[in-house]
Amino acid sequence: MNLPPFTARFDASVAAWGEEKLIAGIRRWLGSASPPAPRGIGDDCAVLSPSRRQQLITVDPVIFGRHFDASVPPRAVGEKLLKRNLSDIAAMGGRPVAAVLALTLDARVNRAWLEGFYRGLAVSARNYRVPIVGGDVAQADGVLAASLTLLGEATGPRVVTRTGARRGDALYVTGALGRSLATGHHFRFTPRLAEGAWLARQKAVRAMMDVSDGLAKDLHALTPRGTVPALNAAAIPRRDGADLRAALTDGEDYELVFAVDGRVDEETFVDAWSRAFPRTRLSRIGRFVAARDVPADAVKLADFHGYEHLQPVSR
Amino acid sequence: MNLPPFTARFDASVAAWGEEKLIAGIRRWLGSASPPAPRGIGDDCAVLSPSRRQQLITVDPVIFGRHFDASVPPRAVGEKLLKRNLSDIAAMGGRPVAAVLALTLDARVNRAWLEGFYRGLAVSARNYRVPIVGGDVAQADGVLAASLTLLGEATGPRVVTRTGARRGDALYVTGALGRSLATGHHFRFTPRLAEGAWLARQKAVRAMMDVSDGLAKDLHALTPRGTVPALNAAAIPRRDGADLRAALTDGEDYELVFAVDGRVDEETFVDAWSRAFPRTRLSRIGRFVAARDVPADAVKLADFHGYEHLQPVSR
Repeated sequence: MNLPPFTARFDASVAAWGEEKLIAGIRRWLGSASPPAPRGIGDDCAVLSPSRRQQLITVDPVIFGRHFDASVPPRAVGEKLLKRNLSDIAAMGGRPVAAVLALTLDARVNRAWLEGFYRGLAVSARNYRVPIVGGDVAQADGVLAASLTLLGEATGPRVVTRTGARRGDALYVTGALGRSLATGHHFRFTPRLAEGAWLARQKAVRAMMDVSDGLAKDLHALTPRGTVPALNAAAIPRRDGADLRAALTDGEDYELVFAVDGRVDEETFVDAWSRAFPRTRLSRIGRFVAARDVPADAVKLADFHGYEHLQPVSR
Repeated sequence: MNLPPFTARFDASVAAWGEEKLIAGIRRWLGSASPPAPRGIGDDCAVLSPSRRQQLITVDPVIFGRHFDASVPPRAVGEKLLKRNLSDIAAMGGRPVAAVLALTLDARVNRAWLEGFYRGLAVSARNYRVPIVGGDVAQADGVLAASLTLLGEATGPRVVTRTGARRGDALYVTGALGRSLATGHHFRFTPRLAEGAWLARQKAVRAMMDVSDGLAKDLHALTPRGTVPALNAAAIPRRDGADLRAALTDGEDYELVFAVDGRVDEETFVDAWSRAFPRTRLSRIGRFVAARDVPADAVKLADFHGYEHLQPVSR
């Protein structure tokens, strides 16, 4: 169901409920996705178990008018909020442990919209076994925004960071890129948690990140000093209807891009991948080379820009 | 220095910088309060060490027009954001471990304001030894809001929750209550971390929370079933100029209220407190009694309401 987030009808708004009823509503909508206090909502902090592994923490929001609009069903907004954070945990090879949610909303937000949002979040939270352990609700005029902080932990002895790639490493990307907003991929995607955890166990994988602002922009962070990414345009996996520019710059792909030791045999690596993930496409898109070694037909990344978060205002 | 958060001058706004320069600026302003990646900002997640203790997590925002206005110096806003979360960690007897910050801002926010905010946050973060390990910056029209998630851990074998008080327990509160907004206490306060950790080591302390929405409202969460709080009006510590209503309802006190086993000798307990915290006022304000045992002169809490987060809009 599509539903405008704001309502002109006082009776349907969160304001008609007041804070206490709203928080009770949120706990009801979250249901079993939110454990009882002190392990969940209801005390000054939520209490979590000790962790013997390296821990991970990340935070990402969804904001009305920026990450979603009235065309996105409220349940999908809740799912997206959790999943975009899960994608960050996946990008380091981790698994999620617990989440907290800070909600900022106008008093005229439609309660039915909010219910959809929380029920969608709860479905995702149960699917991915991430308890929603805490939150905050605050009011601000004209705003509907939710920021989720996700705590995770390593799935094995190491986490994979963005640094560590070397000259000669091969570059791989999962899935397909481009047209995420046009196709609804931006809320329908599945975060690559299993893939990320598997990749963290492969010693040949030297660096990894998720593609969120477009490959052309994100790849800078993975590129070791003194090298440039030499990409093969034909090898870049495109979503249906996406041209090269869309694939490189649209963003919100939530795929993994990673560097593999160039000495590793490609066929062996791809075979192992295919056995582990027969349904997840893997593309070898290029490699890191010295600037003087870039083939003449490599993609000229300087011609492309990814998503810019801060839009200039009119002067 | 006081500084309006928004500017009409494009050159002074965050929009003139764009995202990349803004993030570089934030990292510069945070300085040593933000460790290098992957332990800090700059990877998909921040990496944190394992923890052998019970962990704590909490989230609270500061929103322009709600938790601060142009009269509050930007540095104080940054300090307040961290300290109000520290108060939640204190309320369970924990210590802080790491924080992440989600910033939502209009493109017309003044960079000088933002620098003050982050520098204030950094000063507090260094004072309280809380690294700022991650964050997110997103744009939304007309908004200036920051939400901080704080991870902490127990300081000893137990954390103190809001539940656990019993009939007959004595009620204590630290510091003084009321007129927090009028006096600037709402951003000048010191979170009661040392006091909270000490109280968690006292077996006689059965339940604890911090006073943020006003004692009259907050006390419900501490009150065991079948009892009511019988408060002695004369014993409630008031900030200069605060009447009883202000002390019970103004909110933003960031003091600790806790229940102590009624069989414990008051003088012994207060003596131990005074040796540990000679400069922190402690007041015994009443006790939990059966409804039929409420003295005729006890404060009638039903006559008071604390801070209501969701204000109704005009119909």
